[in-house]
Amino acid sequence: MSPSRAPTAQTLAELKAVVGANGWLEAAADVAPYTVDLRGLFRGSTPLVLLPSELAQVARILTICHREHIAVVPCGGNTGYAGGATPDESNTQIVLAMRRLNRVRHVDPANQSMIVEAGVTLAEAQAAARAVHRLFPLSLGSEGTAQIGGNLSTNAGGTAVLRYGMMRDLVLGLEVVLPDGRVLSALKGLRKDNTGYDIKSLFIGAEGTLGVITAACLKLFAEPADTATAIAGVDSPQAALELLGELRAATGDALVTFELMPRIAVDLTVRYVPGVANPLDLGTPWFILIEVATYHPRQTAATLLAEALQEAAAAGTLRDAAIASSLAQAQAMWKLRESIPEAQRRYGGSLKHDISVALTDIPALIEQGGEIVARLAPEGELVAYGHLGDGNLHFNVSQRPGTPRAAFFERAPALESAVFDLIQSFGGSFSAEHGIGRLKAAELERRTDPVELDLMRAVKRALDPEGLMNPGKVLRSASP
Amino acid sequence: MSPSRAPTAQTLAELKAVVGANGWLEAAADVAPYTVDLRGLFRGSTPLVLLPSELAQVARILTICHREHIAVVPCGGNTGYAGGATPDESNTQIVLAMRRLNRVRHVDPANQSMIVEAGVTLAEAQAAARAVHRLFPLSLGSEGTAQIGGNLSTNAGGTAVLRYGMMRDLVLGLEVVLPDGRVLSALKGLRKDNTGYDIKSLFIGAEGTLGVITAACLKLFAEPADTATAIAGVDSPQAALELLGELRAATGDALVTFELMPRIAVDLTVRYVPGVANPLDLGTPWFILIEVATYHPRQTAATLLAEALQEAAAAGTLRDAAIASSLAQAQAMWKLRESIPEAQRRYGGSLKHDISVALTDIPALIEQGGEIVARLAPEGELVAYGHLGDGNLHFNVSQRPGTPRAAFFERAPALESAVFDLIQSFGGSFSAEHGIGRLKAAELERRTDPVELDLMRAVKRALDPEGLMNPGKVLRSASP
Repeated sequence: MSPSRAPTAQTLAELKAVVGANGWLEAAADVAPYTVDLRGLFRGSTPLVLLPSELAQVARILTICHREHIAVVPCGGNTGYAGGATPDESNTQIVLAMRRLNRVRHVDPANQSMIVEAGVTLAEAQAAARAVHRLFPLSLGSEGTAQIGGNLSTNAGGTAVLRYGMMRDLVLGLEVVLPDGRVLSALKGLRKDNTGYDIKSLFIGAEGTLGVITAACLKLFAEPADTATAIAGVDSPQAALELLGELRAATGDALVTFELMPRIAVDLTVRYVPGVANPLDLGTPWFILIEVATYHPRQTAATLLAEALQEAAAAGTLRDAAIASSLAQAQAMWKLRESIPEAQRRYGGSLKHDISVALTDIPALIEQGGEIVARLAPEGELVAYGHLGDGNLHFNVSQRPGTPRAAFFERAPALESAVFDLIQSFGGSFSAEHGIGRLKAAELERRTDPVELDLMRAVKRALDPEGLMNPGKVLRSASP
Repeated sequence: MSPSRAPTAQTLAELKAVVGANGWLEAAADVAPYTVDLRGLFRGSTPLVLLPSELAQVARILTICHREHIAVVPCGGNTGYAGGATPDESNTQIVLAMRRLNRVRHVDPANQSMIVEAGVTLAEAQAAARAVHRLFPLSLGSEGTAQIGGNLSTNAGGTAVLRYGMMRDLVLGLEVVLPDGRVLSALKGLRKDNTGYDIKSLFIGAEGTLGVITAACLKLFAEPADTATAIAGVDSPQAALELLGELRAATGDALVTFELMPRIAVDLTVRYVPGVANPLDLGTPWFILIEVATYHPRQTAATLLAEALQEAAAAGTLRDAAIASSLAQAQAMWKLRESIPEAQRRYGGSLKHDISVALTDIPALIEQGGEIVARLAPEGELVAYGHLGDGNLHFNVSQRPGTPRAAFFERAPALESAVFDLIQSFGGSFSAEHGIGRLKAAELERRTDPVELDLMRAVKRALDPEGLMNPGKVLRSASP
């Protein structure tokens, strides 16, 4: 794997000709949005942003880049948290922005599937499913901007994973342009197909380092007949876990969302975000946002949820609960949960960790993690919240008011290292949802089992032997 | 990739020493069951069957075989249909039988997961889940014999795929011994983990050609509170598809099973299998076995199913239906479905095809497939039945009584080729459930998209460069 080359003027012209007049950007102001990631952690540069609108254009672009040994950085909605879609500083990497490859190719309600191109936004994909009375369940804060290609390449999660799984679980087939420009056409809408190795899974979550996903056949589901939302108050993470078990037993797969919020997150959100209120009377230390969806038209979700919560209250698992009695109330409850990042921003600096452990280990993680924060970042306080039902917490630390900002941020490396060590001791993940990108590539090298890392490198060498696809993301090196 | 070698007497002794006195078989009578596949399609031979009981033994065996360049054939319950676990005729391949590696290592009800070793039977795994009031949903006719390692290696399906997915969908983590004896320890019980490529998916469905799966962390589910079973009669495959859509809308994910049976399958089963009766009054041309499972203790499954079926009857989608009013009746309905293969055997010879298409294409497949059978195998009649809810049919052809057996079986190659061509024209799969093994390796080469085949070969070369793992299965050659 030799380093990639800078494109010549002649190659740049050849690439522009592939996509035509409206298909490329090169003026500094035009390419600027493509050279910085959402969080402003990485700033790179690029000589050319290509906006292909057809599969054949993507294939031609990658054929040329392969021939000329030019590196390619695929880019979707640029809503990632790990710098996975940002070119490096060399000004030699071509950005391949997928937003014009945005057709819904085929929707098949009977097969509960649809084929969409990579540049379709998640919100557009959801709408295409809704138009035939089906549900595409992936749901994220950034769904209006995030694109399906990026959702696939980062194996996106969100707020319905508990019920429907991650993006990987929602894919039936893929179309991918390989690093040498060949096209893998595997858009079959089959539920069962045992003909050889599961090649498509390699590209999901690979962050564009093995090829460029151009389209996917996605699973659809029956639209729920009814949904209900509630906020419950519990005394401890252990009680939250017990409540989860009780609600699962009482509602089965009706349970779509089970999000943990500590009191500090609720308090900050009520204080800093206009229009947010705490719906509970009691000041419990922990809150849970719950959503259930029912399919049977005669079973109201609110009744199901109310009965399940009453049983949990009778068993002593929860201390307080409020069920939304209107759509507006449900939206207010969701706003409470969704506004936590904004409230944290307004409160002060924060150090963030996107981690997961087995559900059983959540209480110990919060307790031991809290001790680590107290010891290693005394200027901060733990705000651990998120997808408890998936074992996935945003283990964030907010700067306490009045503490020196610089001193707080100086704690970051030692704190992160200790938190990740703790996660590793539980067999957990240091990047549950947000992926590796450039941000955590060194961490991946450090913390991945050497045998597994070696297999990842072998896969990279096998699929992208020239190392041209999104270099430096996920794996810093493909050599052992 | 050079051909593997025959083990020397010294190496055989070294391998026996790894597993100890009760850990190997070499007498002809003892190894005989390991040298023929379930259907008797392939007969091979082996100098030694090893029965490791510990991970370390498997690792040591593969280290020695790698050093000596000896081929290894992993074997589970030997219930596969494609000859995937049978050694070839060279008498040089070592059989690695996993049945003594059969511990349930860990069951975690709160995390809804369990870690079991490869040699645990599917029925034992189900029982381990049931013991903590959880469900492991994979369910197959051969579950008393089939082992988890084989279920993983063949990505097993069965009768609950509609609701719970294939084996691939039920895996959180794997432990695998690689062809060179190194151990991939990836038994994390995490719902979310976006740290690099999805390596574990490569081994699922790889039929032991990339390494030996020794243990898995499996997903568990809430046990249903109640189930209900019914048989419905419809006029056509199209009506069956419409009924599926209506039941999905009415019951959502309560629907676990939706199995199509043509009248001939029901008639044959009633005639040839003792204790089987047709519960319907009307002689509809098509029958559906339906099972729903509910989780909410107050919602009886029978009521839910009855209401849904009444609505379908009112809409004209179904003509007749019977709901089981006792466990015995439900078992009788299941026996009707499960006895179809036995009835077909008693009736006469049969030519079998395990295929899948998008659900939308099922009616056209049955119609056009029936025409092909009439044209190319006039001695036979189509008995297409199976997992309609998954788009997966056992597209079988039974010999008509009184026709010459030899003439019927001579139709097999031309019929199979035409059926597979038809499937391919629908973008379907010529092996939906049963895998490739040795039986369909040539077909895989012929019918897989060349780019996808090339990627499979690249993966094989990357993970098993010496070609020692189950040679000749899935891929006949790893060269382009």
